[in-house]
Amino acid sequence: MTTVAPVPDPESDPRVKAVFDDIRRTRGSDFVNLLWRHLAFDADLLSSTWAEVKAVMATPSALDPLTKELVYVAVSVVNGCGYCVHSHTAAARAKGMTAAQHADLLRVVALAAKTNQIATALQVPIDREFDAAQG
Amino acid sequence: MTTVAPVPDPESDPRVKAVFDDIRRTRGSDFVNLLWRHLAFDADLLSSTWAEVKAVMATPSALDPLTKELVYVAVSVVNGCGYCVHSHTAAARAKGMTAAQHADLLRVVALAAKTNQIATALQVPIDREFDAAQG
Amino acid sequence: MTTVAPVPDPESDPRVKAVFDDIRRTRGSDFVNLLWRHLAFDADLLSSTWAEVKAVMATPSALDPLTKELVYVAVSVVNGCGYCVHSHTAAARAKGMTAAQHADLLRVVALAAKTNQIATALQVPIDREFDAAQG
Amino acid sequence: MTTVAPVPDPESDPRVKAVFDDIRRTRGSDFVNLLWRHLAFDADLLSSTWAEVKAVMATPSALDPLTKELVYVAVSVVNGCGYCVHSHTAAARAKGMTAAQHADLLRVVALAAKTNQIATALQVPIDREFDAAQG
Amino acid sequence: MTTVAPVPDPESDPRVKAVFDDIRRTRGSDFVNLLWRHLAFDADLLSSTWAEVKAVMATPSALDPLTKELVYVAVSVVNGCGYCVHSHTAAARAKGMTAAQHADLLRVVALAAKTNQIATALQVPIDREFDAAQG
Amino acid sequence: MTTVAPVPDPESDPRVKAVFDDIRRTRGSDFVNLLWRHLAFDADLLSSTWAEVKAVMATPSALDPLTKELVYVAVSVVNGCGYCVHSHTAAARAKGMTAAQHADLLRVVALAAKTNQIATALQVPIDREFDAAQG
Repeated sequence: MTTVAPVPDPESDPRVKAVFDDIRRTRGSDFVNLLWRHLAFDADLLSSTWAEVKAVMATPSALDPLTKELVYVAVSVVNGCGYCVHSHTAAARAKGMTAAQHADLLRVVALAAKTNQIATALQVPIDREFDAAQG
Repeated sequence: MTTVAPVPDPESDPRVKAVFDDIRRTRGSDFVNLLWRHLAFDADLLSSTWAEVKAVMATPSALDPLTKELVYVAVSVVNGCGYCVHSHTAAARAKGMTAAQHADLLRVVALAAKTNQIATALQVPIDREFDAAQG
Repeated sequence: MTTVAPVPDPESDPRVKAVFDDIRRTRGSDFVNLLWRHLAFDADLLSSTWAEVKAVMATPSALDPLTKELVYVAVSVVNGCGYCVHSHTAAARAKGMTAAQHADLLRVVALAAKTNQIATALQVPIDREFDAAQG
Repeated sequence: MTTVAPVPDPESDPRVKAVFDDIRRTRGSDFVNLLWRHLAFDADLLSSTWAEVKAVMATPSALDPLTKELVYVAVSVVNGCGYCVHSHTAAARAKGMTAAQHADLLRVVALAAKTNQIATALQVPIDREFDAAQG
Repeated sequence: MTTVAPVPDPESDPRVKAVFDDIRRTRGSDFVNLLWRHLAFDADLLSSTWAEVKAVMATPSALDPLTKELVYVAVSVVNGCGYCVHSHTAAARAKGMTAAQHADLLRVVALAAKTNQIATALQVPIDREFDAAQG
Repeated sequence: MTTVAPVPDPESDPRVKAVFDDIRRTRGSDFVNLLWRHLAFDADLLSSTWAEVKAVMATPSALDPLTKELVYVAVSVVNGCGYCVHSHTAAARAKGMTAAQHADLLRVVALAAKTNQIATALQVPIDREFDAAQG
């Protein structure tokens, strides 16, 4: 079940092929997962989405690759995106996430969700001490 | 504005005082932020909530303290909890988060939210390759 | 701050006046809270929204009035609607919610949010035993 | 499909067995649903999660058991957790929820979600009358 | 898998039959999708929900039918309702949505979700210029 | 209150100045709203975010500018981003949204949120007829 029929032979479009080739090269794997295959219905959207994923997730930056994947999983869980939870949990594992780290991640996500609800339910005013504009 | 009036002299209740003292000791600071002051309306809820925050966030575990704070901020952002975004961004900064790491965190959270929407909109079926039960 | 300027003299419109009068009569109070005053920018939307609130929340039904308010607060918390959390916590209190019940409500909402995240993170398959179509 | 492979013989771990036994005893049933079986990948997380569920949901408190289940279902619906909606709707039914109460629950959840969006869209300022600190 | 068993012969209830007939007439099609078939467990809820869908979505109003469907899809995506994403994407297509418009819709939804997270993470104060009450 | 102190003289950084100048030119206005001023703490994030907003929202595409703003408002409402609801409601008005269209938008967003909850609560299976892969 999907809302966009997968394109029969997506790599016959040279723009799609260029993106798929870059995905394979970047990951060092022949596997191109279904998100990209479905996005192939619009070469522009496919291309700009992959460019951003590559720039943010596959380029060295201030946060290390595993931390970025853990944050990605956390956001995907809270947004309830089953596909993204699957693909990024797999990615985190590929980048070295251990079972103990996975359990720890769940503990933090679950606790944060819990205190988020409590603070929202109490409508707690924000302490002046947290204001970055105070310097 | 709040939905629960802060208790006038919360530390006159010895159970509340014990929690506030533990918060101060654990953080090495006299500051007890307003979330705890509002939770003092129910000593049980205050006590169990703090016990879990201490166990998960202030106890060495598989993930390092800064990574846990970054995940906490990410979850709080997606849940739209202004209070929690403020308190945990401050906590992340206190644990060493640089401005470059903060910007990187925003990039990952924003990108994850973006691809979450795309995958949900396309209702992409989940690749067999992501199933941990296949192992 | 608001996205719709409140109408200067809303009750000069007889349709708005009829709704405000019905709100006052139904609640036995002169107070008409700001949500209704802002909705007065469109008499149709005001009228249909109030009609549904009255039918669901102020008419005897299978669930008692306090239970319905507690559910309303819970939904408003998870949706992060500060206005609604305030107005429906006040309504629950007016319908008899005690401080102990309020704390209990927070415990359930917080726990549910926590296990929601865990189940979503694990992508647990649904037990056949839960399927109502199995009968 | 799952992100954590279920442990083959979970009750060979005495800590897991102790939790499963307590679940069976508390519920008076042999059935241990899949959430707990998947959580068995980390005995600590399994144990602390069950302890909280038991303390909040299976211990007499200020709210009656059915009301707590209805709130749990409401939160799970808004968080979009299919697993939790299934398991807690089944639990509510086991605690006596009638079809008429179920329909009433849906009406309240749906109405709350609706007015949450309207209040957020209008960015209605909060009436002073709702401030518990005024009290 | 469902939480409410579909009613075996729903149209034997004249109130359900009246709604199903109106759905068929309004859409000019014999197809009654599963949401309505499951809602038939409570004729009141079925009837009031359909009445609102018909009034808002199938009655000429200030916004054209396709724009309304696009907004409906967007809300359903953010709420993570798979069923609704499917049914309203199909409806948008039936009302003329092209593949290019679909891709454009995804671009806007994804961008909005992205900047929503950034603004929430920064807790940006709201510019006075946006206040409609200033006007 | 903010989590990132606004940069004192942001346009002394030529990259920030280039973005602000482009914002002014694109909108034909001297006003640069606070989101951009706060994002100036990281010139890269500012620059890439603005580039995407300009490409999606200020460039002719398959959907007309007002429809895109209405979708943007809808997403921002469901995500509970007060800042974004304010800024994009103002933008929609600047692009011609009438009060009647605004009310209609609220009606659709509210109805979608309502039926999203109902479909999620019922866990309705998805009709085969909606599967785009069936063709």
